[in-house]
Amino acid sequence: MKKLIVASTSTVHGSGYLEYILSALSIHFEKATTILFIPYARPGGISYDDYTEIARKAFKKIGRDVKGIHEFKNPKQAILNATGIFTGGGNTFELVNQLYKNDVLETLKEVLDKGTPYLGTSAGSNICGETMMNTNDMPIVYPPSFKTLGLIPFNINAHYLDPNPNSKHMGETRETRIKEYHVFNATSVLGLREGSWLEVKGKEITLKGSLTARFFQKDKHPIELDTNKEIII
Amino acid sequence: MKKLIVASTSTVHGSGYLEYILSALSIHFEKATTILFIPYARPGGISYDDYTEIARKAFKKIGRDVKGIHEFKNPKQAILNATGIFTGGGNTFELVNQLYKNDVLETLKEVLDKGTPYLGTSAGSNICGETMMNTNDMPIVYPPSFKTLGLIPFNINAHYLDPNPNSKHMGETRETRIKEYHVFNATSVLGLREGSWLEVKGKEITLKGSLTARFFQKDKHPIELDTNKEIII
Repeated sequence: MKKLIVASTSTVHGSGYLEYILSALSIHFEKATTILFIPYARPGGISYDDYTEIARKAFKKIGRDVKGIHEFKNPKQAILNATGIFTGGGNTFELVNQLYKNDVLETLKEVLDKGTPYLGTSAGSNICGETMMNTNDMPIVYPPSFKTLGLIPFNINAHYLDPNPNSKHMGETRETRIKEYHVFNATSVLGLREGSWLEVKGKEITLKGSLTARFFQKDKHPIELDTNKEIII
Repeated sequence: MKKLIVASTSTVHGSGYLEYILSALSIHFEKATTILFIPYARPGGISYDDYTEIARKAFKKIGRDVKGIHEFKNPKQAILNATGIFTGGGNTFELVNQLYKNDVLETLKEVLDKGTPYLGTSAGSNICGETMMNTNDMPIVYPPSFKTLGLIPFNINAHYLDPNPNSKHMGETRETRIKEYHVFNATSVLGLREGSWLEVKGKEITLKGSLTARFFQKDKHPIELDTNKEIII
């Protein structure tokens, strides 16, 4: 049975890395002593080692060790052996690029479908959807495909931002961009605000955190989903 | 000799479509009675016809007619015959996708290199750079490549936004995203603020409008470029 936490962000304003969600992670990863960390998204171009160290420090607070996937000779085997997996945020294009280059996307999907507990934040959450087409990131590398894990039946827009009615900026709002997406694609999109996450247990998907989330379906008005409720689509 | 206007946006806050730049366009397109419009970026999924109508209305104010490239049987021939070309904004992924699908990217580059006057706004400006890797748009379609026209020796980040020091949002700033880009790529990036444009005459590139522009080079601190000055890189 799938067991995922799909979080909008690793960090909420004024708080440390993963701090807001540590108590949920402690339960989520209760049977994992070591978490396999996938640092491929490398925010700001940080090295895999440095990024893994950030994750290690956070998980140490709940008594879990962290090992980076790049520390293993065989990344596929590392995924197969893992008792818990965390993919951090950064650039989704580079993350997806590396998942393909290292040929681990299918293996990752397999173990997550079977029940290895998973945490994704930001880019690591985008890849839980059917495609990475609702990322906010810049296309700084050209991945072989936009297809991702398809663990949940919709795409994720992480760090979802509401339109600012006072803005004088003419660039598209997040909502406009998602509407453009639906001209070309049918898959629904969940706009997850910072501090929100999804708890996925098998087919049951529950919104967590204190905020509502905005759900976009093709040819329909977007709706706000209540928190602490199962998402029925 | 190349003759391009590369504008950050079609519209500045509180003003009509292209209004802020019409007097410059009147001179730029002085020898063109009809402008060939490339509506492929279709903002908000607007139809090619409707988008062309918006461009037509704006150019009517300076006595120019507009014809959409989709109105021609042979888009390549339409580009070869055009005496002025305008590519409007919208989604850069879909714009680039259609330029490849219609097999007109090379032809467009050829005529613009030879001197057909060109206007690009937003997505239409992104494609003037070497790649579309500094677009802000969502990857709503998968184009065959991120390579674009390479008419200028750097990439464009349109609608450039300065970091907001009061923001509590944890998503990456535009500057952070461009820095991430430079971990993987060498080409410089010009952050063009709304209301700014480049006037390109052969190899001479001059920043226009009232604002400075932010120039990002790999492994260097970004610098502000003065307006009404040639950009020497």
